[in-house]
Amino acid sequence: MPLEELLEANKAFVQGREARALQHLPARRLVVLTCMDCRLSGFLAEALGLRPGDAVVLRNAGARLTQDVLRSLVVAVYAQSVNEIAVVGHRDCGMARLSVGELTTAMSKAGVSREALPNEDLASWLGVCANPEQSVREAVATIRASQVLPKGLVVYGLLLDEVTGELTVIERAA
Amino acid sequence: MPLEELLEANKAFVQGREARALQHLPARRLVVLTCMDCRLSGFLAEALGLRPGDAVVLRNAGARLTQDVLRSLVVAVYAQSVNEIAVVGHRDCGMARLSVGELTTAMSKAGVSREALPNEDLASWLGVCANPEQSVREAVATIRASQVLPKGLVVYGLLLDEVTGELTVIERAA
Repeated sequence: MPLEELLEANKAFVQGREARALQHLPARRLVVLTCMDCRLSGFLAEALGLRPGDAVVLRNAGARLTQDVLRSLVVAVYAQSVNEIAVVGHRDCGMARLSVGELTTAMSKAGVSREALPNEDLASWLGVCANPEQSVREAVATIRASQVLPKGLVVYGLLLDEVTGELTVIERAA
Repeated sequence: MPLEELLEANKAFVQGREARALQHLPARRLVVLTCMDCRLSGFLAEALGLRPGDAVVLRNAGARLTQDVLRSLVVAVYAQSVNEIAVVGHRDCGMARLSVGELTTAMSKAGVSREALPNEDLASWLGVCANPEQSVREAVATIRASQVLPKGLVVYGLLLDEVTGELTVIERAA
């Protein structure tokens, strides 16, 4: 996508709306951890009924609970008054069908050596998961067991259907 | 935000639209790396002129180039045919004014010991940055220098004004 095209789209967006200052603290005191999947962009917030300013949103490959997510949760909870975390996986997650072999073949074709990646189990490093539901359960359990986050944090897990937009509850708040 | 309220909003969303299946590969072959800030949710995709299905989106505290982001970029580039990366910081980023002292005080009040966090420079672990523009430049430089990503990847850096929605170019593609 050429940068100039993106800047043109941005110009039209800016001209078509009034400037509006929102509070930097999330109004609903919520963090949503979800996947980077392209189908959720411009869709997930709407499907959850969230408006700009309502919730902090974290996204990575597979909505995995990584060190980076933990770091971001620490900032959200202790510096932005968040008291609730929703882990939102989605049904057709690429991390459940990622082929490590195909990925390393693509790397090799692009002239990048396998040795450039960490010398450990690659499926594990990449965050491949058995299925999205299991992945949501794991993330919820890891957040609940974290020594770094306070007791009393409300944590729940959901699964989004990226076709219908429907949410299914996987884990209710304990 | 009570889960039941979120599920009610979701029900209304699902009933108010037709189910629509999109391709799982991003149509614009673009990754956007941006901040978790609550004001960008339901706003950033629109400001960039991106529709659902157009771009993979990564979000963390400060749009920092972490190991988790690198992992996610590897998946996006080698398994999802992405060939372009936009780092999008924003003007009023909380990571440029985060007080480590206030954060650890909030932790302590919540009954969590400082020792629960990694035993290293906390500002660095948290990803505190001098200013958002500098942070965008660092992320762009780190992506360009990465041994893991292919040569020829188009990488640029932008800064979003969260009030007007206007983008400023910080780094053009090399």
